[in-house]
Amino acid sequence: MKAEIITIGDEILIGQTIDTNSAWLGEQLHLIGVKLNRIVTISDTPEAILESIDDSFNQADLILMTGGLGPTQDDVTKETLAGYFGTTLERNQDVLDSIDSYFASKGLQMLESNQKQADLPRDAKILRNTRGTAMGMWFEKNGKVLISMPGVPYEMKGIMRDHGLSMIQDFFPTKTILHHTIQTQGVGESFLAEKISDWETALRNDGVALAYLPSPGLVKLRLSAYAEKGNKEMVADKIAHYISELYRRIPEYIFGSEKDTVAKAIQDLFQSRGFTLAAAESCTGGLIAHEITSIPGSSAHFLGSMVTYSNKAKMAVLDVKEETIKKHGAVSEEVVREMAEGARHKLGSDFAIATSGVAGPDGGSEEKPVGTVWVSIAGPKKTLAKRLNLGKSRERNIRISMLTALNWLRQEIISGSFD
Amino acid sequence: MKAEIITIGDEILIGQTIDTNSAWLGEQLHLIGVKLNRIVTISDTPEAILESIDDSFNQADLILMTGGLGPTQDDVTKETLAGYFGTTLERNQDVLDSIDSYFASKGLQMLESNQKQADLPRDAKILRNTRGTAMGMWFEKNGKVLISMPGVPYEMKGIMRDHGLSMIQDFFPTKTILHHTIQTQGVGESFLAEKISDWETALRNDGVALAYLPSPGLVKLRLSAYAEKGNKEMVADKIAHYISELYRRIPEYIFGSEKDTVAKAIQDLFQSRGFTLAAAESCTGGLIAHEITSIPGSSAHFLGSMVTYSNKAKMAVLDVKEETIKKHGAVSEEVVREMAEGARHKLGSDFAIATSGVAGPDGGSEEKPVGTVWVSIAGPKKTLAKRLNLGKSRERNIRISMLTALNWLRQEIISGSFD
Repeated sequence: MKAEIITIGDEILIGQTIDTNSAWLGEQLHLIGVKLNRIVTISDTPEAILESIDDSFNQADLILMTGGLGPTQDDVTKETLAGYFGTTLERNQDVLDSIDSYFASKGLQMLESNQKQADLPRDAKILRNTRGTAMGMWFEKNGKVLISMPGVPYEMKGIMRDHGLSMIQDFFPTKTILHHTIQTQGVGESFLAEKISDWETALRNDGVALAYLPSPGLVKLRLSAYAEKGNKEMVADKIAHYISELYRRIPEYIFGSEKDTVAKAIQDLFQSRGFTLAAAESCTGGLIAHEITSIPGSSAHFLGSMVTYSNKAKMAVLDVKEETIKKHGAVSEEVVREMAEGARHKLGSDFAIATSGVAGPDGGSEEKPVGTVWVSIAGPKKTLAKRLNLGKSRERNIRISMLTALNWLRQEIISGSFD
Repeated sequence: MKAEIITIGDEILIGQTIDTNSAWLGEQLHLIGVKLNRIVTISDTPEAILESIDDSFNQADLILMTGGLGPTQDDVTKETLAGYFGTTLERNQDVLDSIDSYFASKGLQMLESNQKQADLPRDAKILRNTRGTAMGMWFEKNGKVLISMPGVPYEMKGIMRDHGLSMIQDFFPTKTILHHTIQTQGVGESFLAEKISDWETALRNDGVALAYLPSPGLVKLRLSAYAEKGNKEMVADKIAHYISELYRRIPEYIFGSEKDTVAKAIQDLFQSRGFTLAAAESCTGGLIAHEITSIPGSSAHFLGSMVTYSNKAKMAVLDVKEETIKKHGAVSEEVVREMAEGARHKLGSDFAIATSGVAGPDGGSEEKPVGTVWVSIAGPKKTLAKRLNLGKSRERNIRISMLTALNWLRQEIISGSFD
């Protein structure tokens, strides 16, 4: 059983919008054992839509289509689909009522364009959208299925979770893929591959696939294998065996698995030990705080971050000494240590991390080129500091500094540096 | 002249990675007048690669292919392409030397797997990658072109900027699309559409296309039209005419154009007026600081942000009074005003913004449900505050609070509230 995704939207083809829906749908399909054959992004014209449906139905049994269902004049998908599946639109009173109450609940008035969202294909099953006004639609033809959904990620995900995923599993017989992803930080893809090459060969010979998934500062390792009915437990055990060997091989780099983030690993570690954390950020500019506070429940261990971008703020808020800045410059071991200690003292936390660096693109010097970053950890009894030599991209420098600071904190606590 | 993008990677099909490359490539092609017909994401098997190349060459003259060129065992693209274009791989000494010096410059040792990156198709033009070890490759067949590039966004973009884009313009005759994007904040797609519907109709009748591009807290409006040789100036004038009418219609919602962000609009406004800014963030958790400091040069107006997640931090750093928190709670008009005033005073800035809210998913009450957010602006002479009633998604609540706070600050300064 194969599926394809068709994403409709000129805004994606001309690069105004990044398609995040397909990754989410791909993962959901993978988890229920449906093989995603292709993702195809097309223009929102009737011709492109009709051609791509024919093309995908030649290759697959299920099409997930997103986009093109907005209330504005530029969306043609609903009419085009009704034509393709030989049906007509008619006003659905139930849906009209629910759109009406959706607007009422927001204290807004329903517009004429919103009422049109209740005009739906007579022969499609309607997958209710409780988060917006464009409904999902389930079409069938010759034993194949097309599901059309709005492109707004939050609404599309709601429709799939509420209806789509279970309906797909009911309609099609599905198979199982087992997989496990390990998250590493602080090591490049090539070095990692070299370090584990014999492990990787054994794994592949044993029928388990491996993929390296690098992103700035991180490399994910994904192990996956098909399971037949009856041997699911054996395949799961096999994957678990290779995973535990990997933990023995490279414990220093692994901070988690699946969708874990370094910030989540810190949250788990700090909350299990009852520690509190503060931060003092210069070059990371608030990203450490944002990454930590993106996780629900972070307020239990995270007290705050002093984003001291100016020297004046470093002095006023963190009690960094003026003479230290004058003598060594803001990007220095001495200043970053005073920042970490200042944050720890000011907020009364068990630990504090601090960053100060030249994120770029300007502001570098011969001694401290763009990409020079100092990181510090202040904890009970002592303060550590180290220098990173990163690249020229501001965005990457900020992100890698954040990841490195958080993972270093984790490593030092786990290895007992502060005991 | 049409193009297609082929993205290779199981990690995208199973949702481990979001494809951001295609949006960037789509935009670059659009800017040089190349029509992107489709984006197709496929599995990294020789069969899928070969089939998709045939398929795309049937529809287009140019294929941009990304991914599948890593140094690890799971990448088959280079061999497959050499086979398709009837050539063989041979070690390229120049490239080997440059990979060698790339590693030397990073203080790293070259591995066997990295040396293999210098094995390249004899009949392809090599597009040098100075940011990594996988080279770009330009293949030609029957007047059509395929460019293969690594999937790492930073490396792919470097190859396109350094070589690919100019080579495409030299090889193909290209046409012109003119377009302009207006950025709005603080108004929903439907209401906006209703408010400007007659303007939209006139626009369309005049041969200018319009797209609504919504994302949490923002709606972009994109106007575009094809220009022939000779009438380019006339088409540009026509678009400019509709844009200025839009500014007259909805000035309160427009904060910029093209790739502007609200933070960039704030940066331009503050730097042109010589103002400085500080922030005090609770529910936005550092996102305001991160958004502002992502922009190069932000240190000229931005002094810092006190991310005071705990009540203790609000008191210790911002001098929020304990009795105010006890009496009104941390999410209240009184506390958010004291936070803004505290940040302004502490960092000595002209303006300060503050946020305090219930981001969710937990922590709500009947009086202050999840999504309740207070925002404050402290400026010369006075302090303003307002309440937002947002939704249930933590991520959306944090983002919309950040955007609303920054745009409100911009509106109040422009409208003269603080003069």
